[in-house]
Amino acid sequence: MPDKNGLAQGEEKQQTEGQPSGEITLGQYLLDCLRAEGITEIFGVPGDYNFTLLDTLERYDGIRFINGRNELNAGYAADSYARLKGISALITTFGVGEMSACNAIAGSYSENVPVVHIVGSPKSMVQQAHKLMHHTLHDGDYQVFRKMYSSITAYTAEITPENAAIEIPAALSIAKRKKKPVYLVVAIDLVMKPILARRAQLQDLQTSTSSLKAAVAHASQLLGSSKRAVILSDSMVMRHRLMNPVRELAEGMSVPVASMPLGKGGFDEHHPNYIGMYGGAFGSEQVSTIVEEADCVIAAGLIWSDSNTANFTAKLDPMRTINIQPESVKIGEAVYMNIKAEDMLRELMKVGFEQEEDLPSLSFPYEQEAADVAAEKLLTADAYYPRIQRMLKEGDIVVAETGTFMNGISQIRLPEGASYIAQAGWESIGYATPAAFGACIAAPGRRVLLFTGDGSLQLTVQEISSMLANGCHPIIFVLNNDGYTIEKYLNVKTEQQRYNEVPMWSYTKLAEAFGGEAYTARVQTIGELDEAMEQAQAAQAQGRLSIIEMVAADPMDAPEYLRRTRDYLEEQEKQQK
Amino acid sequence: MPDKNGLAQGEEKQQTEGQPSGEITLGQYLLDCLRAEGITEIFGVPGDYNFTLLDTLERYDGIRFINGRNELNAGYAADSYARLKGISALITTFGVGEMSACNAIAGSYSENVPVVHIVGSPKSMVQQAHKLMHHTLHDGDYQVFRKMYSSITAYTAEITPENAAIEIPAALSIAKRKKKPVYLVVAIDLVMKPILARRAQLQDLQTSTSSLKAAVAHASQLLGSSKRAVILSDSMVMRHRLMNPVRELAEGMSVPVASMPLGKGGFDEHHPNYIGMYGGAFGSEQVSTIVEEADCVIAAGLIWSDSNTANFTAKLDPMRTINIQPESVKIGEAVYMNIKAEDMLRELMKVGFEQEEDLPSLSFPYEQEAADVAAEKLLTADAYYPRIQRMLKEGDIVVAETGTFMNGISQIRLPEGASYIAQAGWESIGYATPAAFGACIAAPGRRVLLFTGDGSLQLTVQEISSMLANGCHPIIFVLNNDGYTIEKYLNVKTEQQRYNEVPMWSYTKLAEAFGGEAYTARVQTIGELDEAMEQAQAAQAQGRLSIIEMVAADPMDAPEYLRRTRDYLEEQEKQQK
Repeated sequence: MPDKNGLAQGEEKQQTEGQPSGEITLGQYLLDCLRAEGITEIFGVPGDYNFTLLDTLERYDGIRFINGRNELNAGYAADSYARLKGISALITTFGVGEMSACNAIAGSYSENVPVVHIVGSPKSMVQQAHKLMHHTLHDGDYQVFRKMYSSITAYTAEITPENAAIEIPAALSIAKRKKKPVYLVVAIDLVMKPILARRAQLQDLQTSTSSLKAAVAHASQLLGSSKRAVILSDSMVMRHRLMNPVRELAEGMSVPVASMPLGKGGFDEHHPNYIGMYGGAFGSEQVSTIVEEADCVIAAGLIWSDSNTANFTAKLDPMRTINIQPESVKIGEAVYMNIKAEDMLRELMKVGFEQEEDLPSLSFPYEQEAADVAAEKLLTADAYYPRIQRMLKEGDIVVAETGTFMNGISQIRLPEGASYIAQAGWESIGYATPAAFGACIAAPGRRVLLFTGDGSLQLTVQEISSMLANGCHPIIFVLNNDGYTIEKYLNVKTEQQRYNEVPMWSYTKLAEAFGGEAYTARVQTIGELDEAMEQAQAAQAQGRLSIIEMVAADPMDAPEYLRRTRDYLEEQEKQQK
Repeated sequence: MPDKNGLAQGEEKQQTEGQPSGEITLGQYLLDCLRAEGITEIFGVPGDYNFTLLDTLERYDGIRFINGRNELNAGYAADSYARLKGISALITTFGVGEMSACNAIAGSYSENVPVVHIVGSPKSMVQQAHKLMHHTLHDGDYQVFRKMYSSITAYTAEITPENAAIEIPAALSIAKRKKKPVYLVVAIDLVMKPILARRAQLQDLQTSTSSLKAAVAHASQLLGSSKRAVILSDSMVMRHRLMNPVRELAEGMSVPVASMPLGKGGFDEHHPNYIGMYGGAFGSEQVSTIVEEADCVIAAGLIWSDSNTANFTAKLDPMRTINIQPESVKIGEAVYMNIKAEDMLRELMKVGFEQEEDLPSLSFPYEQEAADVAAEKLLTADAYYPRIQRMLKEGDIVVAETGTFMNGISQIRLPEGASYIAQAGWESIGYATPAAFGACIAAPGRRVLLFTGDGSLQLTVQEISSMLANGCHPIIFVLNNDGYTIEKYLNVKTEQQRYNEVPMWSYTKLAEAFGGEAYTARVQTIGELDEAMEQAQAAQAQGRLSIIEMVAADPMDAPEYLRRTRDYLEEQEKQQK
C-alpha cells in the first residue's frame, strides 16, 4: 500500500479498533478511516443535510474541508486529487448536491479513480416517515439517488451507527481494490451518534498459486521464442501503483516500453527503455512499427477503447499478447483468473528473458530544437508545442483538457517525476480546470501547469476562484481558438457549425473578476509566448497564479495527432458513402 | 392546450401524418413534434455524439439551438423556459453531457416541469458490438445512463427509425400529461435515417363521470355547511395551466385565495380575492388565521412538503379539505380517481356556492410606503424589499434564487401578468442564473429580473456570458452577504462555519471578463440602490444587461420569513435536547 502513511494508519487502527465500541461518533469514525488512507483534504459543497458532517470535519484534526464552487467541480477536483494521492473524498448534500456531481463520479468510474462520495441526507425519522422534503423528488423515495449512484460506483451503502464499522471499511476496501468510486449516504442526525460495533477485517484478493503458475508457464512459452518483445504501459500501472514493478521488468528484460494514451505518465518518459506513446495510425510511426512488429507484447492493464487505440487502428495480435489485468491475465484465448498484477509482474521477472536486440533510440515529436522560430511568428501548433516541451521541469504536474490541446500535450515528453492528469477516456470537457485545482491541493509543493481551451474553460471557470482563494498558483494556458475546434475536427459531415462557437471572453480579466490577483498575458506570437512563459514561471515561484491566453493563429490550427484523426474520419465517411 | 399554437400544430400534423412513411428523417420528425408543441428554441451543449441532431437542427426552420455554457446550466435554462412556455427541450451528448444535467432534470421532476431531454449516443453498430468508446464507463454497457434517467424522468426511450413515430409522441404525451421530464436517446447514425411508421394516436386521460359525480357530491356536502371557505393555489395551477378555472371559481364563490410557496405566481396577486401567501408559522399571521380558521379549504394541487408548509407548521384539517390533484380528488379519507382537475374545478363552479362574508382586505409585507427611508441607510431587508416591490411592473418575470433572497422575494406582491420562477421545492442553489437566461429566451419582449446571492451565483455564473452572447438584458441583483447566509441560518447547531464562506468576487467586473458590456453598480445604501434601479431600468429599456451588486449592511441580515424559520429551528433543537 504505497500511498498510505504507515504510521498514521497504525495509530488510527489502535484508536478505533482498540477502543470499546460506543466511544466514537459515526462522523469521527468515518474521518478516522479516511485519514488512515492518507486523505488530508476533502472536497465538497455545503448544504443543509451535510451540516453535521461538515461540523465534525471542521473540528477534526488532520483533514481540511476544501470548498468547491459547485459540486461537479468539487468532484473533478477530488478525482484529480485521488490520481495523485491514491484516493480522495467528496462531501455533497442530498439530491441537489449529489445529482450535480454525477458526471464527475461517472468519470472516476470510467477512468478507474477511487473517490469516496459521501452524502448527507435528511433526518432518519423523516426518511422513515417518507415525508416530502426539499431536495427530494417529492415522492417520499429516499433510495432513488443511491440507486442511481449504484450504476456509477462500485459500492453504495446507507451508513448507520449499527453498520458504520462494517460498511465504511468495506466501501474503502472496494474502492482501493477496484479503483472505482464508492458512495456512502448518512442521515444528518446519525453523524453525531456513537458507533456500535468494531471495525471489520476485510480481505484483499489473494493470488491463486496454481493460476499464477499456469499463466507464467504460458507466458514463458511465448517469451521463449521471442526476439522482439515490447511492454505497453496503460492506466492500471498508475492506478494500481505498479510503476516500480513495470520499470524493473522492462530493465530486467531489456525491452522497449511504450505507453498507451490512457497510461501516459505511468512510465518515466526519460527512461532509456521508453520509446513514446503508441497511437495506432495517428501517433508516431516509429513507435507503431516497433509495437506492431513485436513478436510478444506484455500489456500492463490494456484498455481496448476507441480513444486508447486511436479509433481501433491499433494492431495487436492477441495470440502474441500477455495481457495483464489488475486481477487476471489473458494470453491468447486463455484467461487465468485471480492473479494480482503485481504478482504476475514479479513472476515474469523470474522467467529470466533478456532481449538481445539493442533498445531503439527514437526522437520525440516536440523535442526538436525550438530556437530557430522567428519571434513574430503567430501561434501555430508546430511552433508552440516545442516551447511547452522545453518549459517543463522535473516533478511538474501537467493537466491537459480534453480537446485540441490534449491532442498535442499528450505527445509531449514528460520530464522525470512528472505527473500527467487527463481524462483520456471519459473525456468530459471542463474537467481539467477543477482537476488542476485538485492537483494544487494534493501537491502544494509541485508546479501545476494547466493546458485548457476556451470552450472547455467556460464550463467550469469558477474553479479559478477556488484556486485564488486557496493560494494555489498554477500556470493556466488557455488556447483561444474561438470555439470548440476539436468538435469541428470530429464532425466531418458538415461545415460551418454555429453550435461549435463559444462567446469570446477576456480570459485575462477573470482573476480580477474573481476577486484575486494574477499574472496575466494575452499572447499572439512565439516571442510573446516565450516572454509570458518566463514571467509566469517567475510568478509561480513567488506564489502567484498565472493565466496565459494563447490566441491561435488560425482557429483550425491543430497538432498532428488531431489532423490524422480527422483524415481517418474523413476516409471512414467516404467509405460509407 | 393553451400553450400550443393551434395552427402550427395542425400544419405539422399534415406534414407528418399526411405523408407516406419514409420521406422524413428521424431528426426532422423529432423537431416537427417539438415544434408542434410550441418549442422554438432548444437548449444544449454540442458533443461528438449529437452532431447529427445539431446538424439537423441548424438546418431546421422554426427552432433555434441555444448553446449553454455547460449542460447543468442548459438544463436549468430549459426548465425555466418550460415554466413559461409549457414545455421545453434539451440536447446533450452521451455520458459526459447527460450526466452533467442530472441535477437540472431531477429538479424538473421534483417541480413538475416537462423538459424533453434528448441525448445523442454512439453509432448503433458500435453499441451492438459493446465496443468501449469514449464517454462510456468502458464496460460496454449502453443502457446504464438511460437506466439512471429512468429514476428522474417519467419516461425513457431509445429512438430508432422503426419506433420513432410511436415513441416520440408517447414521450411528449407523457411529459405533457404528467408535467414531468422525459428522456430520449438516439444513436448518431440513426438521426438522418427516414422513419418507417406513421404517427401514433395517444389518448389523454378521460375523466370518469361516475367518479367526478361522487367527488362533486362529497364536495357539495362540505360546502353546504361552510361559512368561511378559502382556496389554496399551488404549483399545479401553473403547470397544468389552470389559472383561468381557479380564478373563475374564486370569483364565482366569492372566496379568498392564498397561494402556497410552490404555487406563487399562479394566481394574480392584484386580484381582489387574493390575500397573500400562506406560510404556516413563518408567513403572514393574517393569512394563516384566515386559512387555518376556514371551515372548507379548496386546495388546488396541494403539495405537502417541508418548504411548502413552512416546515410542516401549516395546519389544514384533511376532513375539511377538498384536495384537487391533477388526476384525482381527495376529500377527507375518500379518494376519487381519474378526475382531471379542470373538470373538477368546472363542476365545483356549478355547485353554486357563494360566500356571504366579505372578502378580507389585507396588507402585503413590502407594500408599506418606502419613501421615508434615509438615502444613507445601509442595505437591510426591511429597507430594500419595499424598493424592489415598488420597482416591479406589469408582465415582469421575477426569477428568485434559493437562499436568503428568495425568503424575501417570495413575500413580494407580484404585479398583474407577472411570472415568478423559483425552485421552491427542489431548491438547488445556482438554478436561478441559468433560469433567468431561459426566461429571456422564452420571452424576449418581457423584463426579466434576477434576484440571486453571492454564494449561489458562483455555481453557475458563466450563464451571464450566454445572456450577453444572446443579447439578453435582464437586471441581475446580486445580494452580497459574504457567504451562504441561508446556510448559516439553517445550521442552528454550530457557530462560525468556515465552510459557509465563499470567495469575495468583484461581481460588477464579470460582464467585462465574459467579453460583454453591461450597466453595473455596487451599492451599499438605499440611495445608491434607488439610483442604480433607475439606471438599470433605463439600460434594460435600451437592451443592455445590468448587474447590481447589493452589499448587505450585515452578512446576517435577512427577511422576516427567514428569521422566523430560524426561530422555529432553534425551538426544535431545544426541545430535542
